[in-house]
Amino acid sequence: MDMTTYGVIGCGAVGGLYGARLQQAGFDVHFMPHSDFDHVKRNGLLIESINGDFHLPKVNVYPAPETMPPCDVLIVAVKATQNRLFPQLLKAPLKENGFVLLLQNGLGGEEQAAAVVGPDRVVGGLPFLCSYKAGPGHIKHVDYGHVKIAEYKVDASFGGTTPRMGRLVSDFKQAGFELEPLPDLLLARWMKLVWNVPFNGLSVILNATTDELMANLDSRVLVEKLMIEMLDGARAFGRTIPQSFIQTMLEYTLKMTPYKPSMRLDHDNRRPMEVEAIYGNPVRAAASKGVALPHTETLYRQLKFLDARKNENG
Amino acid sequence: MDMTTYGVIGCGAVGGLYGARLQQAGFDVHFMPHSDFDHVKRNGLLIESINGDFHLPKVNVYPAPETMPPCDVLIVAVKATQNRLFPQLLKAPLKENGFVLLLQNGLGGEEQAAAVVGPDRVVGGLPFLCSYKAGPGHIKHVDYGHVKIAEYKVDASFGGTTPRMGRLVSDFKQAGFELEPLPDLLLARWMKLVWNVPFNGLSVILNATTDELMANLDSRVLVEKLMIEMLDGARAFGRTIPQSFIQTMLEYTLKMTPYKPSMRLDHDNRRPMEVEAIYGNPVRAAASKGVALPHTETLYRQLKFLDARKNENG
Repeated sequence: MDMTTYGVIGCGAVGGLYGARLQQAGFDVHFMPHSDFDHVKRNGLLIESINGDFHLPKVNVYPAPETMPPCDVLIVAVKATQNRLFPQLLKAPLKENGFVLLLQNGLGGEEQAAAVVGPDRVVGGLPFLCSYKAGPGHIKHVDYGHVKIAEYKVDASFGGTTPRMGRLVSDFKQAGFELEPLPDLLLARWMKLVWNVPFNGLSVILNATTDELMANLDSRVLVEKLMIEMLDGARAFGRTIPQSFIQTMLEYTLKMTPYKPSMRLDHDNRRPMEVEAIYGNPVRAAASKGVALPHTETLYRQLKFLDARKNENG
Repeated sequence: MDMTTYGVIGCGAVGGLYGARLQQAGFDVHFMPHSDFDHVKRNGLLIESINGDFHLPKVNVYPAPETMPPCDVLIVAVKATQNRLFPQLLKAPLKENGFVLLLQNGLGGEEQAAAVVGPDRVVGGLPFLCSYKAGPGHIKHVDYGHVKIAEYKVDASFGGTTPRMGRLVSDFKQAGFELEPLPDLLLARWMKLVWNVPFNGLSVILNATTDELMANLDSRVLVEKLMIEMLDGARAFGRTIPQSFIQTMLEYTLKMTPYKPSMRLDHDNRRPMEVEAIYGNPVRAAASKGVALPHTETLYRQLKFLDARKNENG
């Protein structure tokens, strides 16, 4: 089997890091940066990472998806706020058995990608990663880096594990990252929401860090109620997240370095927040099964209000 | 019948205004100011009001409730955040048929007063009033002024209308204010919460004015969901607030001058907010009847977090 050819849509803290490491490991990688095309074309990519700093002086960049060469794997790593652009972005050509690896937070992205490239050509990826864009073509990777992957199924059924998942695991291992193949995308997505829903939204709405939210009794009660709603949402789709997972997430958060979640960083920097992916889509998905998530919906409406006001003032 | 003797506990934007008008109308009024005893003793009370400005150079003030002369009516107009002080404050002596008129927002104050003075000696009052303290002994009354009153019943039953309510109506009429006697305190309190719960809390949490909350689709949806929960809460106690009341309140808010509710003013001025009276007590009351108010509880927890942080930093 030939070495995998990778395309990367979105060259930020997620796509830029994984793409650069894959190129460093010898893979053929083609980037479509979102905002810093000229800079990356001239200067390449600079990575500062807990796993070692490095510079790629020359990377293949393209101004538009349709100008990219056909790839085996198209890594789509734009913010979920950009998913409405999928009909344009996913015009990047795929080889015959090519597929999309979607690296995003929240719920619903795979469905949106599948609507463009077809339901059998999407693998979902959940990055567990602390990294950020320090400047044009410049990424700082400060912690973690593993990714959970699972096949997307249009009927929300179990995807099992497939040969192409094995290929991704092997490629990313060569690039220094652990990929964990999971049989059930929907379960993985709802489990990630158990942490993301309380801490992303409340960190914005209450202008608080994770340790402040854990230290106050009332915010902690609210965190737990929001987590319980994610278990309710998963259950509406026949997925059981054990109650003990809540305790695990709370203990994990207590041990964390006090932290501003990605949504808080987006909001502080006046960027749009991933409100639909992390809040709107879960609330609507559960509602479609007759299950209300009222605490989550309260945060959803509050965050949409804050996001809209930011746009007005910006 | 002799003219009513009034005591006033709390000499702020509510108690100071009504007490001063009663004294101006010729009633015997005795004040226990909360913070500005010395100033009021020396300079009296200055009222700037839409109904006419006036100055009372001499008012009867007392340093402690137990030093006050026995009164027919003890107006208790401290913020609900002070209700834990009722065992001290309500030591003010009452005449044989004397009673407390509690002028407060939220739920639960009458029960706390009744625990001190006895369940048959409490009339609840709901002021519809825009006024604020401009300085020591100085009150600005900018709009409205009428008060809904109803008998407190320990078993939450209808109180009907009583002769002492008639006496209050007559006295306040002489002082220039309309008192509306109602047969059902609990219905009146839940109806007032229909406006207070969405607009007080969201104006603080989202740092927004009433017109901003009405103009954004998401905050308006949330306002309506919070209002619906107040109807659910009232229904748990056998009280029916018609669905049309929500529309009435929304239209009323649209017509208002853009406004910062009292809780927002308290928060902006780093004073404690009436979180338990307006949020905690309704949530717990409904829960005691097996009815959850999850949107309201989300605001409750958020406001308690913000109130606690204010205390830490202050």
